[in-house]
Amino acid sequence: MSTYSVTFIPQNKTVRVDADTSLLEAALRAGITINNLCGGDGICGRCKMIVTQGTVTGRVSAKLTRDEIRRGFVLACQTPVEDNLVVEIPEETWAKEKLGAAEDAARFRDLAEGWEYEADLVPAPLVTKVYLELEKPDLANNTADHQRVDDAIRKALKYRSMQMGLKIIKSIPEILRQNDYKITATVGLRRDIAEVMHIEGGDTTEHNYMVVVDMGTTTIVAHLLNTNTMATLDARACFNSQGIYGREVTRRMISAEQKGVEELQRLLVEDINGLIDQLAEANNVRSKDISAVVCAGNTAMGHFLLGLCTKNIRRTPYVANTVSPPPLRAVEVGLNINPRGLLYSLPAVSGWVGSDITAGILATRMNEREELSLLLDIGTNGEVVIGNKEWLVSASASAGPALEGASVGCGMRAEAGAVEKMYVEKGAIKYQTIDNKRPKGICGSGIIDAVAVLLEQGLINRSGVFVEADKPRVETVEGLKRYIIAEEKETATGRPVYISETDIENVITAKAAIFAAMKILLRRLDLRFQDLQRFYIAGAFGSYIDIEHAIAIGLIPDIERSRFEFVGNASIKGAKIVAFYKEALYKIEKIREDTTYYDLMGANDYVEEFQKAMFLPHTDIELFQRSGDLA
Amino acid sequence: MSTYSVTFIPQNKTVRVDADTSLLEAALRAGITINNLCGGDGICGRCKMIVTQGTVTGRVSAKLTRDEIRRGFVLACQTPVEDNLVVEIPEETWAKEKLGAAEDAARFRDLAEGWEYEADLVPAPLVTKVYLELEKPDLANNTADHQRVDDAIRKALKYRSMQMGLKIIKSIPEILRQNDYKITATVGLRRDIAEVMHIEGGDTTEHNYMVVVDMGTTTIVAHLLNTNTMATLDARACFNSQGIYGREVTRRMISAEQKGVEELQRLLVEDINGLIDQLAEANNVRSKDISAVVCAGNTAMGHFLLGLCTKNIRRTPYVANTVSPPPLRAVEVGLNINPRGLLYSLPAVSGWVGSDITAGILATRMNEREELSLLLDIGTNGEVVIGNKEWLVSASASAGPALEGASVGCGMRAEAGAVEKMYVEKGAIKYQTIDNKRPKGICGSGIIDAVAVLLEQGLINRSGVFVEADKPRVETVEGLKRYIIAEEKETATGRPVYISETDIENVITAKAAIFAAMKILLRRLDLRFQDLQRFYIAGAFGSYIDIEHAIAIGLIPDIERSRFEFVGNASIKGAKIVAFYKEALYKIEKIREDTTYYDLMGANDYVEEFQKAMFLPHTDIELFQRSGDLA
Repeated sequence: MSTYSVTFIPQNKTVRVDADTSLLEAALRAGITINNLCGGDGICGRCKMIVTQGTVTGRVSAKLTRDEIRRGFVLACQTPVEDNLVVEIPEETWAKEKLGAAEDAARFRDLAEGWEYEADLVPAPLVTKVYLELEKPDLANNTADHQRVDDAIRKALKYRSMQMGLKIIKSIPEILRQNDYKITATVGLRRDIAEVMHIEGGDTTEHNYMVVVDMGTTTIVAHLLNTNTMATLDARACFNSQGIYGREVTRRMISAEQKGVEELQRLLVEDINGLIDQLAEANNVRSKDISAVVCAGNTAMGHFLLGLCTKNIRRTPYVANTVSPPPLRAVEVGLNINPRGLLYSLPAVSGWVGSDITAGILATRMNEREELSLLLDIGTNGEVVIGNKEWLVSASASAGPALEGASVGCGMRAEAGAVEKMYVEKGAIKYQTIDNKRPKGICGSGIIDAVAVLLEQGLINRSGVFVEADKPRVETVEGLKRYIIAEEKETATGRPVYISETDIENVITAKAAIFAAMKILLRRLDLRFQDLQRFYIAGAFGSYIDIEHAIAIGLIPDIERSRFEFVGNASIKGAKIVAFYKEALYKIEKIREDTTYYDLMGANDYVEEFQKAMFLPHTDIELFQRSGDLA
Repeated sequence: MSTYSVTFIPQNKTVRVDADTSLLEAALRAGITINNLCGGDGICGRCKMIVTQGTVTGRVSAKLTRDEIRRGFVLACQTPVEDNLVVEIPEETWAKEKLGAAEDAARFRDLAEGWEYEADLVPAPLVTKVYLELEKPDLANNTADHQRVDDAIRKALKYRSMQMGLKIIKSIPEILRQNDYKITATVGLRRDIAEVMHIEGGDTTEHNYMVVVDMGTTTIVAHLLNTNTMATLDARACFNSQGIYGREVTRRMISAEQKGVEELQRLLVEDINGLIDQLAEANNVRSKDISAVVCAGNTAMGHFLLGLCTKNIRRTPYVANTVSPPPLRAVEVGLNINPRGLLYSLPAVSGWVGSDITAGILATRMNEREELSLLLDIGTNGEVVIGNKEWLVSASASAGPALEGASVGCGMRAEAGAVEKMYVEKGAIKYQTIDNKRPKGICGSGIIDAVAVLLEQGLINRSGVFVEADKPRVETVEGLKRYIIAEEKETATGRPVYISETDIENVITAKAAIFAAMKILLRRLDLRFQDLQRFYIAGAFGSYIDIEHAIAIGLIPDIERSRFEFVGNASIKGAKIVAFYKEALYKIEKIREDTTYYDLMGANDYVEEFQKAMFLPHTDIELFQRSGDLA
């Protein structure tokens, strides 16, 4: 088989690949992470590159404008290598999100501040450092070194069951005698037993950190915690690099079967390590002082992290390898913290309702209340939980990443410069960006607003189609209508920020999938939306969503507004609760056991409900009577 | 520095060593294990070799006869290499005990048969295999694989807390589906938590074995157990190869500090592996079906096994690295059983009273009785425990290996051909060998008998000195008197079996150390020998010792005979109890905690008591009034 060399600029990296390898795959092998979300299906149009030397026969794609084609643009995933090439990767194509997301930090901190867990639990972190000044041995008290340390730790921390590995036991005699019997012990909880993870000389209790991670299909978020003060020090986020293997987890599971789960694991671990490194560096924390990582995410992500088999999750009867992995050494999967530090993977309900949801239930405490609640977690999948202290039922719907700002032409993560809000003022459509920076793109909350205001202003109809082409700011490019939110001259990129008919279709599909899921679950329980006393909305953008607009497009039901409660990133909040209140490990395990999974894929009325929800706000307008009044 | 080559025959191994390296060290480097017990001090005379080529200037030694010197014999430990040499190692010098000790097996089996632990514990082995036929998943029951297995094991074994490693969790999906959901799980107890050590397809419960080991300073004994039937299948023993680094543990601790504990660990692990291999081979057991090793021994041995620091055990205030190590993977120290099999090192009282003693207390149940008992464990150290269900006090005296058949000219382990009994019949001294084989040497019980009958027959006086030289069978060789037990023509070796004045002195020293220890401990407790309701005698030869002879030489006190009870190798019995009754792990841990250690080295009246006991039976003859009557 012939091979060809491909050189990527500006990275100036060259790889040799077999004929017919896709340009996307070649970039991947060159170690360049591409902000590709559809997994090589040619749908998202994110992997645009410019071939500057050599010949390619790119497949036709509606994702490229005629102007782009003229300038040599191709979709890398649709372009087989058949010549030696030099390829330029435009700035917007490479995943620069992974480099310094410093602007995000302040924003995520806001989310964390003032947060308190009003639980019946005593604050006690998963991993504790304790400083001990031991009695020195004499003939009247010559207890062995290991037992001397062990007894002191038990006394200080009131542990009943505790274990210590051989290496640590071996290290004790010298550490004691070289440090005048003054030591710091790091003790972590492994299921029902505490483990002494580290013994060192002197008092190092001041340096004790943990990281909590929400492993989203599209976005990964990590917070750095000060274990002693229970404060969130900082936060970082990046797009999930596994995106190159598919926008949805099903595609990635197929890739895992074809290429080995190790490849998916590697990308995820590298992403998390990247966030940990950024957090450590920016806050002057040594990685050895990070003694635990608590991870939540959907079940496939949980499996990828541990390198587990996802084969049976995507095949009936949808069996996971595990829904409750034990705490492990973080190094066992390659996470870059203290070599003896622990990785806690939170428990999931099933193959399709992950630990992000059990964490969300923990954070909302809906499982402890008499009243009936619904928890809606809007991510790449939309998960719904309904229940109270007696019972909990969950379901998952495949929404796609549109509401996270992905699979949308100008979509971006909720970071500085993203259009996060749109509204009508004196008859004119206005926008607002995060940190009031010049607009770069549009994030989830802005997208919902955009669809709502376009509908409200009569620019689109209830099917999401532009009514007339000759309105101001509405233009047609390559046969596709779009609304210009910010013109070239206003933006940071010099390119307009817009929302197209395709984008609107993606939003409608997403909200229809979610709404249908809620509808079916309620029907099975013989309940109506009005019966829900609380309606928790979770998601990366949760704090910023406009309730009226979300109702206007039919994402959430038209019920009394006071019942809605935003819980932000409930997944990371739940993870944080576990990190700071170790007893919560048992609570979340109980939540996992007590939550029933309802399989929408097996519900024969789901498709019908989904079709009915493919209008704005819904085919059955009576469901949205109040919003009709308000509009 | 000059180097020389040394070739050993019949092994035909050549090593190159620096000038002045001892011949013993050279043999060790050539991988030849020498049956040396004094650790290179030139005392035991065990390392005799014949230099056949090259010149040596061996130091003078009373251990070599003139005839031997004429024939080119040297003591390898006393002979520096100063020339290229060819050295012959006589058969009796190399440690052939390590090769096939098949003759021992029947003997050890006798010890084990009919043994039952009359405890309040339910039989439940430390490691269990359980066969499970799982329900296959369907849409109504799509529990994750890990939890499906976990639930089934908990249900079958009634475990509350259980852990499973990532590797095993990963292996489950394929094992389940390839074996029609029929599997065998191996579950072991790690402190308070059960651990799933292995999952395999089909029903393998039939193959489930454990090994228990008594790690003596001089002798190592291992038994192979069938976990299912609670039967002892076989037994093997060998001399402890660490003997090359000293007869007593103190010498070996010094060696560990000089050469690194890894060297001592290596020798011990090789010895145990040798015994395990023999046991496995002889009984058609695969090493992967041995899922646990339970070890007992003195604290230094326990440290050597785990590669722990013994430095502080031998220095005031005598602090051990640990007295209660956690269960470990056996591979972590290099033991050759199932790669995920566990090593249980039983807990010790202190640096000088080891887990052989806590195991002995467990086996005798003296800690559960109202009545006052004394446990005497006769090994290279003599340990004494006095107490009842309210309290337990222990002490340790350095006796030397004479009573184990070592450090005695013709001494040998209690195996076929050893003189194990001597008695007077019609005025004549008679002997009896193990398995009635032609005599090869004399073991511990025979040595006690020998001293007693020589005393009884008036051949030696109360100081252990031969009264007259011209009695039958008494001869003087190189100025040293000895009594010929079996003449050359009767023996298997063609050399006489005898007991010399030096041997008798070693026996007196040993029994004096032990008797003084008991005396001091009783004095501190304000008790007399008569107050002891039971007197347990443990030791490798325990079942075969002659009570009257032991009293006659003053090894044990002259109390009512019915109070004596032989418990054989109490160390291995205790280990077996733990292996078969997992709850005993908690009992023995409680014994460790409840037993006080009394330090004889700090007792200023110990030396005086020791001197008083250096007579046969004792300076204070009134202590042995009854035996006086009986004699």
